[in-house]
Formats: sequence, structure tokens, C-alpha cells
Amino acid sequence: MLRIADKTFNSRLLLGSGKFASPQLMQQAVAASNCQLVTLALKRLELDKAHDDLLSPLKAMNVQLLPNTSGTKTAKEAVFAAELAREALQTHWLKLEIHPDARYLMPDPIETLLAAEQLVKLGFVVLPYCSADPVLCKRLEQVGCAAVMPLGAAIGSNQGLQTRAMLEIIIEQATVPVIIDAGLGAPSHAAAAMELGAAAVLVNTAIASSENPVAMAHAFALAVEAGHSAFTAGLAHHSSQAIASSPFTDFLAAL
Amino acid sequence: MLRIADKTFNSRLLLGSGKFASPQLMQQAVAASNCQLVTLALKRLELDKAHDDLLSPLKAMNVQLLPNTSGTKTAKEAVFAAELAREALQTHWLKLEIHPDARYLMPDPIETLLAAEQLVKLGFVVLPYCSADPVLCKRLEQVGCAAVMPLGAAIGSNQGLQTRAMLEIIIEQATVPVIIDAGLGAPSHAAAAMELGAAAVLVNTAIASSENPVAMAHAFALAVEAGHSAFTAGLAHHSSQAIASSPFTDFLAAL
Amino acid sequence: MLRIADKTFNSRLLLGSGKFASPQLMQQAVAASNCQLVTLALKRLELDKAHDDLLSPLKAMNVQLLPNTSGTKTAKEAVFAAELAREALQTHWLKLEIHPDARYLMPDPIETLLAAEQLVKLGFVVLPYCSADPVLCKRLEQVGCAAVMPLGAAIGSNQGLQTRAMLEIIIEQATVPVIIDAGLGAPSHAAAAMELGAAAVLVNTAIASSENPVAMAHAFALAVEAGHSAFTAGLAHHSSQAIASSPFTDFLAAL
Amino acid sequence: MLRIADKTFNSRLLLGSGKFASPQLMQQAVAASNCQLVTLALKRLELDKAHDDLLSPLKAMNVQLLPNTSGTKTAKEAVFAAELAREALQTHWLKLEIHPDARYLMPDPIETLLAAEQLVKLGFVVLPYCSADPVLCKRLEQVGCAAVMPLGAAIGSNQGLQTRAMLEIIIEQATVPVIIDAGLGAPSHAAAAMELGAAAVLVNTAIASSENPVAMAHAFALAVEAGHSAFTAGLAHHSSQAIASSPFTDFLAAL
Repeated sequence: MLRIADKTFNSRLLLGSGKFASPQLMQQAVAASNCQLVTLALKRLELDKAHDDLLSPLKAMNVQLLPNTSGTKTAKEAVFAAELAREALQTHWLKLEIHPDARYLMPDPIETLLAAEQLVKLGFVVLPYCSADPVLCKRLEQVGCAAVMPLGAAIGSNQGLQTRAMLEIIIEQATVPVIIDAGLGAPSHAAAAMELGAAAVLVNTAIASSENPVAMAHAFALAVEAGHSAFTAGLAHHSSQAIASSPFTDFLAAL
Repeated sequence: MLRIADKTFNSRLLLGSGKFASPQLMQQAVAASNCQLVTLALKRLELDKAHDDLLSPLKAMNVQLLPNTSGTKTAKEAVFAAELAREALQTHWLKLEIHPDARYLMPDPIETLLAAEQLVKLGFVVLPYCSADPVLCKRLEQVGCAAVMPLGAAIGSNQGLQTRAMLEIIIEQATVPVIIDAGLGAPSHAAAAMELGAAAVLVNTAIASSENPVAMAHAFALAVEAGHSAFTAGLAHHSSQAIASSPFTDFLAAL
Repeated sequence: MLRIADKTFNSRLLLGSGKFASPQLMQQAVAASNCQLVTLALKRLELDKAHDDLLSPLKAMNVQLLPNTSGTKTAKEAVFAAELAREALQTHWLKLEIHPDARYLMPDPIETLLAAEQLVKLGFVVLPYCSADPVLCKRLEQVGCAAVMPLGAAIGSNQGLQTRAMLEIIIEQATVPVIIDAGLGAPSHAAAAMELGAAAVLVNTAIASSENPVAMAHAFALAVEAGHSAFTAGLAHHSSQAIASSPFTDFLAAL
Repeated sequence: MLRIADKTFNSRLLLGSGKFASPQLMQQAVAASNCQLVTLALKRLELDKAHDDLLSPLKAMNVQLLPNTSGTKTAKEAVFAAELAREALQTHWLKLEIHPDARYLMPDPIETLLAAEQLVKLGFVVLPYCSADPVLCKRLEQVGCAAVMPLGAAIGSNQGLQTRAMLEIIIEQATVPVIIDAGLGAPSHAAAAMELGAAAVLVNTAIASSENPVAMAHAFALAVEAGHSAFTAGLAHHSSQAIASSPFTDFLAAL
């Protein structure tokens, strides 16, 4: 069971709700993944509509909504967005995202830490998206974040665990759940993240942009479970030398 | 469904039966993996015993036995071993393994092709373990092998898909199933092999040597299914540039 | 020519002076590398001695000294150390290093940015060691740093360009020289960093800990030149398909 | 010094002569690389011309010509081509290349071994291009090849050391020089090959297809020297933990 703040979740796969061809497809993908935490961008919501296209299906599914502050460029903007989200969605859970850079959407470590500290004081359960920076993750933890969400690669790049060496250190040092976010482009990437000891992963582009998002969501769910089970069971170490699974002495000698 | 020769299998995970702490543990791991094809070394069997420790539990499980010729160093030895196996186990399915090299257990391409050709003529369903050599795989296919089993890394090394670039070419060119054998040390490796388009994978050391072989067998089964589903659903391409899953224009502008 | 602040250098290899078996060996390695910028830890210096063992040979070589603030854990400590270094060594060049974490020596992004801003105002030429964080590097540049020094891997790990995907973004966006620091364990790593477009690299452990530091220093110098020349000449792109260097149509047809 | 058969060479970089924009550019690149062994495809030569465009400049440079059998698909064709080359170029040195596959130009292990054995008996100094197959390399050595030339990646792919795990085993086991051929796309790849302990590398596409082949040839020459020097000097091992090059205890404590 994944525990974040005061809640527990059976699934260790978080989904993003962006980029799907339709709200229906998003809803089906969420269902296929057994995901219980879904992030959504405040900007996407038409808060004044009684039945927002994106929000209504999510509410119907009884998942924990995780509004994000994507699109904000400073701590001030992010805090404002968070307040709006809390009021509109009636949740104090928040994925904090601050990226001044429009091309690669890289998170700003300074503004993120600043906003995180304020938001924790304002009563939010804060899950910050951040670079794979071991000291930054430790500081985010120290100001009270409920988890940290270091990136595996650039958002939407599908490049996988490009920051693996840093993620290993982050996971080793963390006392809150480490959720690998961004860049995971294939189930094998998600499995590898879990094998490192990540508490969970967040996937969006690789599922939403697939030709078959529902099948892909299910594939990611299986991979996350596989990787987590393997981590728990204890992975064998690499060896530069072969270790025979079958006897290599000439079996004929034994006849 | 995986089709090899005239048989079909629901599972795309093949297991090796060596290295388990006990036959019971092997049996439980096979059960947990839903594996339907299990390879076993002829040398391990005490053919004259009525109830061989390794063989009896496998027979009870109704899996397809895949005796291997591990331990042989020449085509001649391998053909002899194959004949013995066919008689003893009452199956003409065979995993052909010829490795003169005791340290890394690397397969001999010359002897393997020679033996494969003879064994096909002798009526065997031949699945040869071989190096990740695209021309060799094509030639093994041409002499009538039912599948090819190129290695991902050295046997027992747990290093994963070290031969990935060659495997991609092999899979692209093959008209028989490509089963990645040897070196897969984690579920993420198995998922990655399936995402490349492999028909199946064979795992032994990573499961048998795990602290919890039963949990690990199940984890590999999930990963194989995840990877195959993702391959079928269509994986997204890598991108060197971020593609936002959430809107990156300043959402405040819209308020 | 590498230009940093108001100085130009023929060499794009920076050396660290720590870990050498003797000051003589350090001096010889610096000479063999043609390095013109050498970093040294303030702590190592016995500032009150007329002829410090480490400092005297460096001064005799007419290289630009680059004192570092290694060992400091906060911006305040780093600024204090920088002032001491400026006075003692008569240089306002400074490698800013702040790592609160004693195990992996990972730099603190928050304290580093804070100190950099102050040190620039105090007249220092600031070269900050930092995580491979594209936004942080941009901010360090914006407060006036003369270069940025993102890490390739953990200090002393010899793991090479583990942060490659982030370094590519940093280099693409930078308007000051990007010097890859930490983790480069082999000449091939240094060449690869330069092929990405890095302005320079800093190496210490891989040279100082080698069995033959002088030969290794020369090897790194060659590799840095090789990588930089290749970057300038224009590297070819990867291809998933073979492109024959020799004719592949049957040459016999032409006879 | 690189020793192959009865000759010694100062340079450990071999060049291919194909794909250059002009013979002059090829000549200049060979000169810039200090290369002493140049391979050339028989088909490219107009043997009946007194002054062949490709051959004349090479002869003028006093390099060892290494005619290759590129374009042949069987041992029989390769032996015939070798005889033609020996007569036309007055050298019994030969790069044996047999690739039935026109797309990826992968070498045929069976035909290559067969031809190698015959050519050695016919008095040739045989350097076979082959897949990175440890057993095949050992067998090629056993039939009398003067060196083995396993591939790093597909010809012309510029992908680098994709077969690294196999090359390590080949190098460990070899008693003749191991020359990494094919796929090296950047000086860092060549340096890495030499750091593994390769005796030499062969490069063609990455140099000939560069925008500046002369500068690139020089860059590869430096990288080969760097990698070989580092191998000789003794590379440090990787570490998952940081090892401080500068003191990490608080230096202030010492003041």
C-alpha cells in the first residue's frame, strides 16, 4: 500500500489527465489502470460550468483529484493557483509545478521550494514536481512536502530514466515517498523506476498519446506492479561473469 | 497467443528449472508465472529413477517440457543428447545449447547451426540459444528452427538487453518467433525485450536466485504481459523536446 | 580558445589538485595536461606557511588558480571562505561549492544561487558547481556567474555523463560557458562531454587516483581536444540503418 | 606499438577509404589521422587504369593497403575477390568481409570462418570483420587470423559501442589483436573502445561523412591515443558513492 500524507492507495501508478483525445478515453484509461490519483491542470477546467468535461468523469470515478499548478512561473502564481484549485475542487491535495521555461518545462528549484514551504503552511498536501536533485528533494521533504516528484526525463520526451544515477541517491535518502514523474515512455521505464525503489510513478504522455490509451494504461499498471514486486522480492545483482543456470561440465561424463 | 511450431501458448514467459533451492520452489515459481514452457538440463535428471525430483513436479503441471543440451560442446554431442532427451522425456521439443566456453557459456555459432540442421531433419522442434547475430538467426530460421533464442547478455549476468541494437535487427528480419534468452535480470528487462517486439523471453537465474522466487516469477509474468501489450498498443516515440501534458501558457491569462 | 570572464585559455581541461599522492605528482600531472585553470580547496592550504606544499608548485606554473569553497554547507560559510581565499591567494576567481551532504557531496541549489548572487556583487568571478538542472543553470547565469559547472555524476564516482539528457538542455540554453564537473572517470567521458558542446570539463579523481596520473592527465587532455574538435567539425547523426562505407552490390557483377 | 602479423604500426586507428567526397579529401584525412592501415573496396578500383583515382594517392602515402572483400556474399566469392586483390595490389593483407544482407551489412559468421580458414592456408594475412560473438572470434583466431574485427554497431550507424558487453569478453579472451570495426560515430566511442582494451579501431563513415573530414580524422586520432593511454595507465573503477576530491568536513572547524 502506498501511503501519502493520511491516505493509502492500492495503486502505485498516478495518471495525468491531459492530452487524451476525449474525456471518455481518459476515463477509460484511468479505469483500466486502476489508478487512484489523477492530476489535472487547473487551466483545463471550466470552473464556471456545471458539468466540466474533464472534471465530471473524474469525480464520478471516486479517485483522489490532484490539481496541478502547471502554467505558473513563480511561487506567487503557484500559491494563487493552488488556492483557486482548493476552492474549486474541494481538495487540499496539490501537485506543485512551476516551470518558467516553455520549451522543456523544466521545474524551477528556487520557486518550487519557496512555494512548497508556503503551501504546507496553508494546509496543503504538497507533492512537488522537481528536478532530480538530491539536495533539493531533501529540502522539499524538510519543509513538509508529503512526497517528492523528481523527473526521469523532460516532460513528454518518453526518454525514460535519464536521471537514474540521481534518482538512486534521492530514493536512498528520502523519508517521504519518491514518485518518479515525467519522461517515462514505456512500461519498462516504469518497471525500472519501481525496481529502484520508487514509491510510485506518474505517467501521462505515454498513455494519452498512444494509439490505444486504454491498453497502454493497463500495460503501465502491470509494469508498476511488476517492478514493485521485484523490488520487494529482492533483485539479484549484476555480474560480469556468467553463472550457469544449467550444468556446464560435460554432461556426457556422467553417463 | 504465442505460436511455436504446431503449439500455442497463452504465456510469453519461458522458465528455466535450474538453480532453484528446491524442486518445490521451482514448481511454485512455475505456477506463479503461468509459464507453459519449461526448459531443463538433461544432466540434472536422474533418468533411471522412477520419480526424478525435478521432472516429476514438472510433469504434474502439464507444461510443455523443453529439454536442453546444456553442457555439450559440439554438434555431435548435442545431437546425441537430444536423442537421449527425446527418448527419456517423450518430447521432440528441444532447446539447443552448445557452449564450448565454460566461463561465459557463450554459444558456438558454427556447431549450433550444424546441429540445428541435423536435428530438424531428425524431426525435432528446435529452439536454438545463440548469439545476437542477425545473419546467424536468419540462417537458423532457414534450416528450419521453430524459433530463435538470441542472448540479451551473458547467462546469469542479470545485465539486461546489452545486445539491444542487434536484437532490433533480428526481430525486424525474423519470420519465426524471437525469444530473448539469457541475461534478463529484472522485470524491466523483460518488459523492454517485449516492447522491442520479441515473441517471448526465457528467464532462469533472476527468478531462481531471488530471495523470493515465487514473487519474482509473478513479477516477470506481469512485466512480460505489460511489455507485449505496450508493443501491441503502439509505443510513442522518443522526443528530445518536451511536449507539455499540461498547458504551459500562463493559465492566469485566461482568468 | 575558451573565454571565461575577461580571460582566455588554450586548454579546455580544468584540473582539481586534491587526492594526488604528492604535490610533485600533482605538478607533473598539471604540466602533462596543459591545463591552465586549477582548482584547490582552501582547507588544504596552510596559509600561514611561507611555502605551502600545494600552493607553491601551482604558483610556479603560472596557471590561473581557482580556489573552491568545498567543505562549506551554507551561503554564509561559502562567502566567508571566498573572502579568505581572495585575500590569501590574491585572486577573485572562485569555484563555488556548497554541499551539505557529506556522503554524495551533492550541491545545494538554494544556497549556491544565494551565494553566487552575493559573490558576484562582491566582485568575484564565480564558477558554481551545481546539479544538472537547466533552470538553476539559467538562474546562475542571470545573477552574473561567469560560467556554470553542472555535474555529470557524483563527485569521485567515475560514472561518466549520467546526467546527459539534462546537460544537453543546459548547453543548448546557456549563454555562458558550460563546464562539466564531477563524475568524469575516463577520457571517453570527457570526449563525450565536449562532443555535446560543453565549453570545458573539470577532472580530478580520475587523474589523481590513477596508477599513473601523469599519463592519465595527458590522456584526458587529448580526449578533450578530440571531443571539442569533433563538435566543431560537426558530428554525424545516428542511424538505425546501416549505410555502407563499401559497395554492397555484388562487385563480381562488375567484372 | 600495434603489432599485427609481422608488422608494427605506430597508429591504432585504421581508416576506410569509402564515402569521401573526393580522393583528395580522403588523402588529407588519412594524413591528418596518421593512420598507417587503410582499407579499400576492390570494387571501387578501376584496376585497368594506370592511375586509379583512389589507389594512386594511397600508394603515394606509403600506408599498408588493406583491400577488403565487401560486396561478397559467400566464402567462395570472398576467396576469389581476395586473390584478385592480392594480384592487383601486390599485398597479401586482407580485410575479410562477407555480408549477404544488403540492408544492415551484417557479417555472415559461417561463411566468414570458412573463408578465413582457406585464406590463411593461401598465405593471406586475414583480418575478418565479424559479429561481436566471443566464440566466433576465438574460432577465427584458432584458424590463424592475424586479428579479429568485431563490430561495435551496424556499419554506418554511428551508434557507438552497442555490443560493449560482448566486446569485453572478446578482448579478455583474445590472443590476437581485437580491432573494433563499424558503428563508431564519434571520438568518444573510439576512446571508449580503446579504454576497454581494444588493440585498434577502424573508422570510416563518421570521418568521411563529416562536414570536415580532415578535422574529424585528427579528432579520432587523438581520441584513440587518449583511450589507449588511459587503458595503459589504468582506469579507476566506478563507484556508486562519492569520494571527495576536496575535504568535506567543515573547513571552518580548522580555522
